[in-house]
Amino acid sequence: MTVNSLSTQVRLLISCHDKPGIVAAVSAFLQKNGANILQSDQYSTDPSGGMFFMRVEFDLYGSYQLEDLRHSFIEIASEFSMDWRMEPASRKKKMAIFVSKEDHCLLELLWKWKAGELKAEIPLVISNHKDLQNEVESYGIPFFYVPVTKESKAEAEQEAIKLLHKYEIDFIVLARYMQILSPTFVSTFPKRIINIHHSFLPAFIGANPYAKAFERGVKLIGATAHYVTDDLDEGPIIEQDVLRVNHRYTTDKLKIAGRQVERIALARAVTWHLNDQIIVYGNKTVIF
Amino acid sequence: MTVNSLSTQVRLLISCHDKPGIVAAVSAFLQKNGANILQSDQYSTDPSGGMFFMRVEFDLYGSYQLEDLRHSFIEIASEFSMDWRMEPASRKKKMAIFVSKEDHCLLELLWKWKAGELKAEIPLVISNHKDLQNEVESYGIPFFYVPVTKESKAEAEQEAIKLLHKYEIDFIVLARYMQILSPTFVSTFPKRIINIHHSFLPAFIGANPYAKAFERGVKLIGATAHYVTDDLDEGPIIEQDVLRVNHRYTTDKLKIAGRQVERIALARAVTWHLNDQIIVYGNKTVIF
Amino acid sequence: MTVNSLSTQVRLLISCHDKPGIVAAVSAFLQKNGANILQSDQYSTDPSGGMFFMRVEFDLYGSYQLEDLRHSFIEIASEFSMDWRMEPASRKKKMAIFVSKEDHCLLELLWKWKAGELKAEIPLVISNHKDLQNEVESYGIPFFYVPVTKESKAEAEQEAIKLLHKYEIDFIVLARYMQILSPTFVSTFPKRIINIHHSFLPAFIGANPYAKAFERGVKLIGATAHYVTDDLDEGPIIEQDVLRVNHRYTTDKLKIAGRQVERIALARAVTWHLNDQIIVYGNKTVIF
Amino acid sequence: MTVNSLSTQVRLLISCHDKPGIVAAVSAFLQKNGANILQSDQYSTDPSGGMFFMRVEFDLYGSYQLEDLRHSFIEIASEFSMDWRMEPASRKKKMAIFVSKEDHCLLELLWKWKAGELKAEIPLVISNHKDLQNEVESYGIPFFYVPVTKESKAEAEQEAIKLLHKYEIDFIVLARYMQILSPTFVSTFPKRIINIHHSFLPAFIGANPYAKAFERGVKLIGATAHYVTDDLDEGPIIEQDVLRVNHRYTTDKLKIAGRQVERIALARAVTWHLNDQIIVYGNKTVIF
Repeated sequence: MTVNSLSTQVRLLISCHDKPGIVAAVSAFLQKNGANILQSDQYSTDPSGGMFFMRVEFDLYGSYQLEDLRHSFIEIASEFSMDWRMEPASRKKKMAIFVSKEDHCLLELLWKWKAGELKAEIPLVISNHKDLQNEVESYGIPFFYVPVTKESKAEAEQEAIKLLHKYEIDFIVLARYMQILSPTFVSTFPKRIINIHHSFLPAFIGANPYAKAFERGVKLIGATAHYVTDDLDEGPIIEQDVLRVNHRYTTDKLKIAGRQVERIALARAVTWHLNDQIIVYGNKTVIF
Repeated sequence: MTVNSLSTQVRLLISCHDKPGIVAAVSAFLQKNGANILQSDQYSTDPSGGMFFMRVEFDLYGSYQLEDLRHSFIEIASEFSMDWRMEPASRKKKMAIFVSKEDHCLLELLWKWKAGELKAEIPLVISNHKDLQNEVESYGIPFFYVPVTKESKAEAEQEAIKLLHKYEIDFIVLARYMQILSPTFVSTFPKRIINIHHSFLPAFIGANPYAKAFERGVKLIGATAHYVTDDLDEGPIIEQDVLRVNHRYTTDKLKIAGRQVERIALARAVTWHLNDQIIVYGNKTVIF
Repeated sequence: MTVNSLSTQVRLLISCHDKPGIVAAVSAFLQKNGANILQSDQYSTDPSGGMFFMRVEFDLYGSYQLEDLRHSFIEIASEFSMDWRMEPASRKKKMAIFVSKEDHCLLELLWKWKAGELKAEIPLVISNHKDLQNEVESYGIPFFYVPVTKESKAEAEQEAIKLLHKYEIDFIVLARYMQILSPTFVSTFPKRIINIHHSFLPAFIGANPYAKAFERGVKLIGATAHYVTDDLDEGPIIEQDVLRVNHRYTTDKLKIAGRQVERIALARAVTWHLNDQIIVYGNKTVIF
Repeated sequence: MTVNSLSTQVRLLISCHDKPGIVAAVSAFLQKNGANILQSDQYSTDPSGGMFFMRVEFDLYGSYQLEDLRHSFIEIASEFSMDWRMEPASRKKKMAIFVSKEDHCLLELLWKWKAGELKAEIPLVISNHKDLQNEVESYGIPFFYVPVTKESKAEAEQEAIKLLHKYEIDFIVLARYMQILSPTFVSTFPKRIINIHHSFLPAFIGANPYAKAFERGVKLIGATAHYVTDDLDEGPIIEQDVLRVNHRYTTDKLKIAGRQVERIALARAVTWHLNDQIIVYGNKTVIF
């Protein structure tokens, strides 16, 4: 067995209709093509005719090349009508962060990134306010101010899209961006925009969730990280978490608790996305 | 200091509009009337003119009598327009349990009761099905079968109310009773009916919450224990809890997780009610 | 694809030294022998020469027989020097429960068993006290009283072993049994005895953990479910959980919290064991 | 009632042997001296002769002065042999942070401080390494490099003490400082040094806890915030928390989980200390 390093590791993700023989076909293919399986997970929604999902991590050794492997895999993929991708573990995804004025989610991501906990490149941060410019730039990351008004919204989105294309962004994290993205924008980055919802979905959808939570007298405060779709706050859920609160929590203290749980849930969701651990199907996620 | 025992302990609960001097007045009164304060908690929603809540546990020693104390307290109570009660800790509240066919919440309560964890009397269990009769009777508790149909509902509730009055019931626990109680019934036992909601309120109100949770792809399953009011599932929340789930959870496995978290949340709510730790105000609870 | 049911499902568990080609070999074998993989998980401690663990759930369809499959698998197993087993999902494991006087863990298991949450047979319960006889028998389960004194301990263990063999027990759950088993007993059921430790291992090993926890002023109470080895409380950990406590918890209230968390942790560990989700290696567990 | 603001709020903390009449005496005193009680909590370890703890928040209105109130309180305090203090809520405590090379705990505190979640002044950060100088100074906080070697340790501590006195520090947070403080240092700041222990005490005391946790195969990773005493890692516990882990966690991933839970537990402990919510007695804490 060859020495293993991130530079030769590949992640294969597969979704397709379930049929007998998929695992055998995939693992025989990998074995024949110089790949040593390091880890493999699969999930079937319903073995009698449901969906099949698989994630394989493998080492590609010797003189084998990922491009050749991808090319060879097309045959097997079309046999099973697979939706698939092979991602080299060594390639850091390019992540854009969108923020507004609140910094807690942004800083959580930047700290984890700097600490080496998030294997990503962050080519830019985009904001509709200048408040966080210094903080972003102190991490050596370019900050782009793209103001948004009702009238300029379409234009502003086009400007953002141009920037995202220019920097060859792989995915976007809305770290408390507070702007609703248009269907045009969302469809430009399908399943590639992660949002943190300031509440425990499906409860308290919409504005002022902490005031609503205070009114309702809840005993837990939650947050939900999800992919963005055209339905506001209704995209596939990636992660949820809660913190315990009590009657002594004012709306302000609920907000502080909310920030804490938002940071935790969003950072987990981003980590899983970066590690290619998530497959989206319909309005749900499989987290491997 | 005299020897302290449950038989001389009293719990005083107070709600009123906040004013300076309440704590001093109450503690001076208790001191003067032979009471030694063991524990005291208070909470003000807003010190400049909001609501004030207080719970005091005290020992009544020597020859002092609770009835006399209650009588003497009326003066101070009316001065501050208090809503108040004094409960001897030694008196076990009489708890009726309503069930349908599912036994998990019922058995959790019965085990904890038998283990001495719930200081209550359980004079009867009422059910609209006979399924759990043997289980209840094996604990030595009378079981009453009160069937409910659309036509007989009003009558059945009257029969239940008669039983509850006959057994001098203090409060009712709906341990997965699955029937909506009429406003008449609810108003007969105001703030004295505890329900366990098979979901994390305010999400997934109504029927089939686990099927809904499955469809939505949630990552946490919750349960909410609350007092029953006329608004279905909208009464004051007492306790909430969650369990982590993932994409491998079928609707059936979500139900099992739900049962687990329902048992835990309901048992905590009942414990706090029995210990006079809850004050209801508006649509919220203060848990001391 | 044939209709799938528990009666044709099989679980294959494998441990061996890691080598390239294992997954491919196993899945090709299954594919060739009429098995459709439903779910597959694997884990490598260290891809460059560590240990490899795999769990596969598959449907065996048509006229294929498990006995034949086991026979055919021997070749591949010896090629990779595998430690392995194939378990039909339909076969309920025979579980013996050992108890002493405390009933909380016992009743948790019995209720989950009766509710269909634990797919097991429970042919007998063994106890060194008669306290729980009625409770056990009310579930229709034979109860054996096997008293233990210092002098009779070896004899009592032999009596228990005889019973366990007679009832063809697969594994044993010590549901607060409070007796230390001899190395002889333990080696008769290697990796097949599950204990619940009344504390968060490795803290508070030994007697009176709640008094120790009270003295230390801890803010969390834990429990640990583990396999029993000759080292008291040092066997492979299966599951751990905690509950939050505070300064108001007396030793008695810590015990109540401890019971709660013991029930939860033990029931999870037993569920995973029943579903063949656990592989033990060295002093650790892999939970698939 | 006068308008209430932080500038007139005072927190009174009391420890003494339990006797009848303490609450009445204290609240009558406050009432007579122009104080309106906003919140009051008390706890008795054992009403028949144990310890009594109380925390009162009150508004001091009109022309009443805190210094006068303190002076007047001496009489009542000596009657009950109280250990007590009155702290104005408006006075921000002066907090020194000690760090070494790891930044996660430091940054958690700095973020929360900047976000207004920690009501403190941070006059300086002291470190035995220069690694975090820029980060600290970017928050506008003076950074002092005080190197420590075996030989220079006593000297270095004296230098630190001098700095702490010069800046009139109220308490010290060891945010992963990694140096054992001498009894001389500890006794200079009794009950005023908070440490975060990189493990779930009392488990895994000492060095390399994550390697030990990995060896032991634990399923939870914890952290403990505690006051520092001469017994290493044995001081009064303020807060503990855990995160769930599994067999896939390498020692490195356990460290990442550890950092996460350390940040959370330490920030909570510091918040409670700043709000005067903690009373230490013996080797324990009461958290109000």
